[in-house]
Amino acid sequence: MQEAAIRVVDKINSPEDVKKLNYEEMNLLASEIRDLIIKKVNAVGGHFGPNLGIVETTIAMHYVFNSPVDKIVFDVSHQCYPHKILTGRKEGFTNPETYHKYTGYTAPEESDHDLFKVGHTSTSISLATGLAKGRDIIGGKENIIALIGDGSLTGGEALEGLNNAAVLGSNIIIVINDNDMSIAENQGGICEHLTKLRNSNGKTEDNFFKSLGFEYHYVSEGHNIEKLIETFSQVKDTDHPVIVHIHTLKGKGFEPAMINKEPFHWILPGTLDRLNDTPALSEEDYNSLTKDYLLKKVSEGMPIVAINAATPGVFGWDKTFREKMGSHYVDVGIAEQQAVAMASGIAKRGGKAVMGVMSSFIQRTYDQLSQDLALNNSPATLLVFWGGISSADATHLCTFDIPLVSNIPNIIYLAPTCKEEYLKMLDLSVKQNDYPVAIRVPMELISTGEEDNTDYSVLNKFQLKEQGEKVAIIGLGSFFEKAKELKETLKSKMGINATLINPKFITGLDKDLLNNLKANHSLVVTLEDGELDGGFGEKITRFYGNSDMKVLNYGALKEFTDRTPLEELYQRYHLTSELIIDDIQQIL
Amino acid sequence: MQEAAIRVVDKINSPEDVKKLNYEEMNLLASEIRDLIIKKVNAVGGHFGPNLGIVETTIAMHYVFNSPVDKIVFDVSHQCYPHKILTGRKEGFTNPETYHKYTGYTAPEESDHDLFKVGHTSTSISLATGLAKGRDIIGGKENIIALIGDGSLTGGEALEGLNNAAVLGSNIIIVINDNDMSIAENQGGICEHLTKLRNSNGKTEDNFFKSLGFEYHYVSEGHNIEKLIETFSQVKDTDHPVIVHIHTLKGKGFEPAMINKEPFHWILPGTLDRLNDTPALSEEDYNSLTKDYLLKKVSEGMPIVAINAATPGVFGWDKTFREKMGSHYVDVGIAEQQAVAMASGIAKRGGKAVMGVMSSFIQRTYDQLSQDLALNNSPATLLVFWGGISSADATHLCTFDIPLVSNIPNIIYLAPTCKEEYLKMLDLSVKQNDYPVAIRVPMELISTGEEDNTDYSVLNKFQLKEQGEKVAIIGLGSFFEKAKELKETLKSKMGINATLINPKFITGLDKDLLNNLKANHSLVVTLEDGELDGGFGEKITRFYGNSDMKVLNYGALKEFTDRTPLEELYQRYHLTSELIIDDIQQIL
Repeated sequence: MQEAAIRVVDKINSPEDVKKLNYEEMNLLASEIRDLIIKKVNAVGGHFGPNLGIVETTIAMHYVFNSPVDKIVFDVSHQCYPHKILTGRKEGFTNPETYHKYTGYTAPEESDHDLFKVGHTSTSISLATGLAKGRDIIGGKENIIALIGDGSLTGGEALEGLNNAAVLGSNIIIVINDNDMSIAENQGGICEHLTKLRNSNGKTEDNFFKSLGFEYHYVSEGHNIEKLIETFSQVKDTDHPVIVHIHTLKGKGFEPAMINKEPFHWILPGTLDRLNDTPALSEEDYNSLTKDYLLKKVSEGMPIVAINAATPGVFGWDKTFREKMGSHYVDVGIAEQQAVAMASGIAKRGGKAVMGVMSSFIQRTYDQLSQDLALNNSPATLLVFWGGISSADATHLCTFDIPLVSNIPNIIYLAPTCKEEYLKMLDLSVKQNDYPVAIRVPMELISTGEEDNTDYSVLNKFQLKEQGEKVAIIGLGSFFEKAKELKETLKSKMGINATLINPKFITGLDKDLLNNLKANHSLVVTLEDGELDGGFGEKITRFYGNSDMKVLNYGALKEFTDRTPLEELYQRYHLTSELIIDDIQQIL
Repeated sequence: MQEAAIRVVDKINSPEDVKKLNYEEMNLLASEIRDLIIKKVNAVGGHFGPNLGIVETTIAMHYVFNSPVDKIVFDVSHQCYPHKILTGRKEGFTNPETYHKYTGYTAPEESDHDLFKVGHTSTSISLATGLAKGRDIIGGKENIIALIGDGSLTGGEALEGLNNAAVLGSNIIIVINDNDMSIAENQGGICEHLTKLRNSNGKTEDNFFKSLGFEYHYVSEGHNIEKLIETFSQVKDTDHPVIVHIHTLKGKGFEPAMINKEPFHWILPGTLDRLNDTPALSEEDYNSLTKDYLLKKVSEGMPIVAINAATPGVFGWDKTFREKMGSHYVDVGIAEQQAVAMASGIAKRGGKAVMGVMSSFIQRTYDQLSQDLALNNSPATLLVFWGGISSADATHLCTFDIPLVSNIPNIIYLAPTCKEEYLKMLDLSVKQNDYPVAIRVPMELISTGEEDNTDYSVLNKFQLKEQGEKVAIIGLGSFFEKAKELKETLKSKMGINATLINPKFITGLDKDLLNNLKANHSLVVTLEDGELDGGFGEKITRFYGNSDMKVLNYGALKEFTDRTPLEELYQRYHLTSELIIDDIQQIL
């Protein structure tokens, strides 16, 4: 490459090399890292704004501290790209052929400079207290640093972590990367306090961090490497808990991302090439159906409150929608526990709470689902998005929501297979006053074109879609399509006219229907788009345990997969008609 | 009753009656309520110190506010007895024959004055934000009050709640009942800040609550009804979020409970009659075994850190143990998320984290088990106590830990059946560096007297305890005893010499063993002391789904039971040898 000889980054193979640079070189390095990130993320997608905002902080940290002896924990690790570049992994950013070599999150298997595999927020302070406690009990002396954004500070684990870090009595340095944004706007009392701190150059009265017992430092110029190094040098080797509050700019160095931060938090490949394109008219999908429904009900005077925990983009709850909803929309911060409890409270007061949540994040609030919601039978609605087997990073798998939700008493968990069922279920859920309802919203919109007239208040009624014999196929939710395909293949390959069932209810068995199958079926096949262990199919199998019925359950194995291609997973899990028929042939 | 005519409490049938009293009468009432609580709790057991400490606050709240129109949410509801007495349920305290009529927690089915069924901590503020939001969206005007202790403030949900309540923009009144205690000593930066506030009459600089944006009131005399009424009257009908910080004395009115707060948080029946008895020498149990093991390893120089989330009494981690452990003991507050993440961090740094947790509370930290611990394969040890079917209150069921823990990848969940297995498993877990291990500690100590030489690093190896035929019985953990009994009954009633299996591993199947059973068995019976749905037995059943093996799973149904007698549950769940044999006879 022509420019290679003059780039600072080419000299950087480890943090040791950063320590040799002067300020001018470090500023050049910052600029080069930004260029690399902009180019790569535009090529393959990824976290954009958070990484651009943390470049100087990362350089300064690696200049002052001695990683990996000193230990830096990156909260949620949306901001770890500069760190990866400085810690021996720059080829993941300099060379398009190896753009995919490293994950988008911290990953100990890649480097000793990464402590934890992290992709859920608000964990860094707690993890750091553990590292610090381990160090102290063993007799180490290194610095323990947690780098956490202002958005992540709204999560309960982070706040529990602060409460504990404050009394650790030894070295721990918590760096608050305050860019005044979560993925969307940040929310809550802490956020408003951070604004006051920024506006007062860290000097407003009633300092939240000091109230907890921390030594507090404020760096107003969060992109000034010299000032950052000065502050980090001051707190290095501290013998007590310290906060370094840094004011940064999300998307720094890329004008559109600085102006319009939310859509540039994470971008799809090619986004920067389409900045001037007229936005395509969005097609109907489950996001638009949900938004239209909620807005309609609000306009009809229904006391709807749409709640989410800082991820409105997951369900397309964009600015337009939020503005139209007005006080009927609540973002609680990255605080799923609060979201569920608040939904329960709203429902108890007669409001109609509809909470959106990504499957991977519903697990951040199990106890609230159980105690605040289910035990109290509060008639709130939970919409679980993105549930299913995917090629996602290990930190963002969406395969665990069925075992998690469906083994809690009282919650009705529904699995629509098409638009019409979804709308009917949503409407039933919002209108009833008897129990909490969760709906597993499919990814891909399918419309039958026929209105669904099912009365979903009659619980646990499976739909016998097509009566056949010998083999019954039960396809749950998004995998009903796979069930239909399997039926076709069974017909063509084995001449079997299988029965096809759309169960609709994840959380209860249609015992009459299942019993009736015994008459002229010898095998039941279940298909679910999620983890088998603790899931839907096992309950069917248990039902038939005392009978001659054979049952085959298909779904994901219990494992953390990591960016594994979906087709590979389907092969591994026998989630193709051909592989299932191989299994069936061994039985029948 | 002779004294009846002169008691104030006899005139109180609802909060309306409280409003008619003068200060003198209210003080008399407080004294009478204390007497009732002391007498009743000593008779039947229950929460003692927290209720004695909140008497005046409760009277003042009901004097000023207009329950049930105004809504009071009791955090964890360890302090709801005075409220129950004032809201039409005094016969649960005045009349020994109806002592058991009402639960020990708030319960909407008992009274409109109770909003939620609550027994886990840190939920009140979030629930109250929901009530407030529901009120605002519907157009109500009532006061929403959350009453929360300083201990409960250490939980993430409470802190998420504070962050949201602060920006609610409408009426919400959070009453902090600060008695400077959790169940044991309170912990953390917030706790130390509360001490500063108390010592400065609420005037210390850097006020935590003001930093979040709350209006703040301090009541130093938390047992002075007049001052409480004055402050509540000031904040009533506020149009913005308010904190009322009240300094109370846990155990107020009963000297031993004021001096020695921890053992009087909750007491067994008759405790007050045995105050002068010499404490019985405690017998060996799983608590003592665990403590002895941990202390021995610490003395050998192992970097053990015993962690718990504010419930050391559950595992007998008393003051003596805590003092001996010194820096090897950590109480993180009521912050299970922090506890698990910290354990992961300690393990990552080479320390040996051993976390104790009650089954009912492990569900407060699912995401940390998954992301912080399991995904990172951190070799920490979790000891899950009290797991099993019981006659507990609906808020404290311990039947859900197997579905919760065992469907998370990477965690090894072990079920010892006796002392020797437990000690071997604990030792293996602490010494290994490969994966997180959880151990389900049985309630009742059984000793075989024979050292266990199993190598538990060979995963998922079930123990074939006795080889038989036709029927194989797999008895998990504490239910291995039921399996043994069933084997005997099968022999005597049906002449079947059943195979007996101790699986030991909850989280993985011994496929070889299970396959071998097919040769000369036609039925497998599984027994587990927990919820069937998503649990251990279903996985056995799924394994045999493609075979002729019949399987019967026994355990708890998916339901919230509420103080249901254990024998009744065993009948309901067919958890007796006789009922199981009835089922078997229908199959074989």
